[in-house]
Amino acid sequence: MDADATDETHLRRAVELSLLSLGETSPNPNVGCVLVSPAGTVVGEGRTAPAGGPHAEVSALAAAGGAARGATAYVTLEPCDHTGRTGPCTAALIAAGVARVVVAVRDPDPVAAGGAETLRAAGIRVDVVEDAAARDAMVGWLTAVGRGTPYVIWKFAATLDGRSAAADGTSRWITSPEARADVHRIRAGVDAIIAGVGTVLADDPQLTVRTATGPAARQPLRVVVDGAGRTPPTAKVRDGAAATWIATAPGGGKVDLRGMLRELYEQGVRTALLEGGPTLAGAFLAEGLVDRVVAYLAPKLLGAGPAALAAAGISTISEALTLDVVDLATIGPDVRLTATVKGA
Amino acid sequence: MDADATDETHLRRAVELSLLSLGETSPNPNVGCVLVSPAGTVVGEGRTAPAGGPHAEVSALAAAGGAARGATAYVTLEPCDHTGRTGPCTAALIAAGVARVVVAVRDPDPVAAGGAETLRAAGIRVDVVEDAAARDAMVGWLTAVGRGTPYVIWKFAATLDGRSAAADGTSRWITSPEARADVHRIRAGVDAIIAGVGTVLADDPQLTVRTATGPAARQPLRVVVDGAGRTPPTAKVRDGAAATWIATAPGGGKVDLRGMLRELYEQGVRTALLEGGPTLAGAFLAEGLVDRVVAYLAPKLLGAGPAALAAAGISTISEALTLDVVDLATIGPDVRLTATVKGA
Repeated sequence: MDADATDETHLRRAVELSLLSLGETSPNPNVGCVLVSPAGTVVGEGRTAPAGGPHAEVSALAAAGGAARGATAYVTLEPCDHTGRTGPCTAALIAAGVARVVVAVRDPDPVAAGGAETLRAAGIRVDVVEDAAARDAMVGWLTAVGRGTPYVIWKFAATLDGRSAAADGTSRWITSPEARADVHRIRAGVDAIIAGVGTVLADDPQLTVRTATGPAARQPLRVVVDGAGRTPPTAKVRDGAAATWIATAPGGGKVDLRGMLRELYEQGVRTALLEGGPTLAGAFLAEGLVDRVVAYLAPKLLGAGPAALAAAGISTISEALTLDVVDLATIGPDVRLTATVKGA
Repeated sequence: MDADATDETHLRRAVELSLLSLGETSPNPNVGCVLVSPAGTVVGEGRTAPAGGPHAEVSALAAAGGAARGATAYVTLEPCDHTGRTGPCTAALIAAGVARVVVAVRDPDPVAAGGAETLRAAGIRVDVVEDAAARDAMVGWLTAVGRGTPYVIWKFAATLDGRSAAADGTSRWITSPEARADVHRIRAGVDAIIAGVGTVLADDPQLTVRTATGPAARQPLRVVVDGAGRTPPTAKVRDGAAATWIATAPGGGKVDLRGMLRELYEQGVRTALLEGGPTLAGAFLAEGLVDRVVAYLAPKLLGAGPAALAAAGISTISEALTLDVVDLATIGPDVRLTATVKGA
C-alpha cells in the first residue's frame, strides 16, 4: 500500500530516529519507531540502543505504557521475530495491544524475518510500505546483511584536478576544517575505519572520531591493511584511543581484501569507511568492494602531485567505473560529492 | 542609493535582456535596457545589437516612441557618452525626454564613461545602484576592458579522480551528451575558443558552436596555440566553419600567451574559452591568465590515464591555486563546478 499523508509524517519521524542511532547499533540495524494513538497523538518514540540494549519498538512501547493499546506503530524495519540478546519485538507489540504496524522496509535477515506474518497471525493489521528514505537510512546494514560483508564507503579528498598531495608530497591541508569535521561525522556513523600501511607510514593518522569537544565516546575499529606487518609500534593507530586490527598476510604477501571484509563482518562490522591511500582504494575498487564514494573536492588546482586514485584495473574509457551521484553539497569552501557504485 | 522593489524588478529584467545578448556584441558590452512610464508601465525594452547596430538604450527608445517622455530608463551599464559607430546614448536619452536613469554598473571604459554626469547636467535624475547580477552578466566585458586582455574561461572535463582520458588515451566520451551540449552553450557566449596544437593533433576538434539544429549562425574565432606551426592543413579547425587563427612563435618557440591575449583584445575579443589540453591550461594558469574555471566532472573513476591539468608551476600545497566556487550544478549525470580564480 501507499502511505497516506499522516502515515508519511510519522514514517519521516521514524526515519529521523533511526538516523540518530546510525553507527551505534552494529551488529544490529539502526531502527526508528513511533507509536501513534487512534486519536493521532504520538504516545511513544524509540530507536535501537547499542547492541544488547532494547530495540526501537521496545523503547517506544516503554515510553507509551498503557497508551500503546490500540496504537499504530511506525517502524523503519520489519519487527524481529526471534530471540537474540533481547526478546522478539513481535511478542512485545502483540502483548502491548498495538492495533496496526506500518513497516518501512522488510527485514532481509532470514534469522530475524517473519515478523509481519507473526503480527498478522495475532490479528494486527500490518502494512509494508517499502520506503526509500528508510532504506537509505539503513543502507549499510541492509547491504551488509544481504551479502555477509560490510558496506564500504570510500572517502577521499582531492583538488579539482584530482591530486591528493602536491609534487613535494605535502597535503596538509587540501580541504577545509569544515570538510575535515564532516569526515569525523561520517567516521562516527561506521563500525570500522580502514587504511593502508602506506598511509600510516606517510601521514601517521590516528583514525579516531573527534568532535569539537574532543574524542567521541564510541570509536570505530581501526583496521590497517598491512600485508608485511610494517605498522610501527609507535604509530598513532596503535595508541589506546580505539581498538585496532593490523590485517597481515601469510608470508608478508597481499592481504585478501574480500576475506578481510568477511572476517570484519563476523566480528560485527556492518559498515566500514575506507580512507586510503590511492593504492588501497584502487585495489578495493578493482575487486568491486566499494559501495559508496564520498569525494571532498577542494576548489584548488595543483597541476602536479600524486593522484587521489591509483591503478584500479581500468585501461580504457569504456571500462571506467561508473557512479550515480546521490548528493552534492558545499562544505565550507569545498564540494562534497556522494555517489553510489553501480552494480555494487 | 539602494534600489527599491519596483526598481529591483525592472533591473532584473534589464539583466535578463543583457544576458540574451551575451556573446553577440563584442567589442561592445552586452547591455540591457527597460523603459518604464511614470504610471509604472514598461513602454520599451532593448539590448545591445551586434557591433555596429544600435545600443540597448536606442532600441528601447525606438520601441517606446513618444512614451519615453518622462519615463525611467533602467540600464545595466552607464550609457555611453561618446560617438562610436553609433551616436552617444546620452544624447538619445536626453532628446527623448527621459526623466530618470537607473544605472546598474558604472562604465570602466575611460573613452565611453561620463554618461551619468552628462545626463545629470541635462536635468535627468541618475541613480547608480551598483548591481551584482548586472556586473556578473557583463563580467567578461568589464574585466577585459579594465585591463586590455580578454576574460579567459578554462573549461575541462575529467573523471572524479581527475583524469581526462584512460590509460590507453581513449577519452570519448568522459562526459554525457548533456554536458557536451552545455559546453556548446558556453562556446556560444564567447568571442574566441583557444586550444593547444597537442589537442588539435590528438583529438582533431572542430571548435565550433553546434546546437541541436546544427551549427550556430555566429561562430567564435578559433585560436590554436601552435608555436612551431604543426597544425595540419587538413585539421578540422581549418575548415571553413569559422575564422581560425594559428598563433605561432618566432623560431617555432613558445607562444607568448599574454602577448597573444593582448593581440586578441585588439581584434575585438573580450571573452575567450580555453579548451585545453592539460599542458596549455597549466601554462595559462602559471601565468595567471585564467579568470574562471568550468569543470565538468563525470561520476566515473579511472585510476590511471593523463591528468586534466599538467604542470602549472606549483610544487607545494601552500602554493595551490585557490578558487571560489560560484556555481555547482548537475548536468545530466555529471557535475558542473564553476569557480573564479582568486586575485585574477
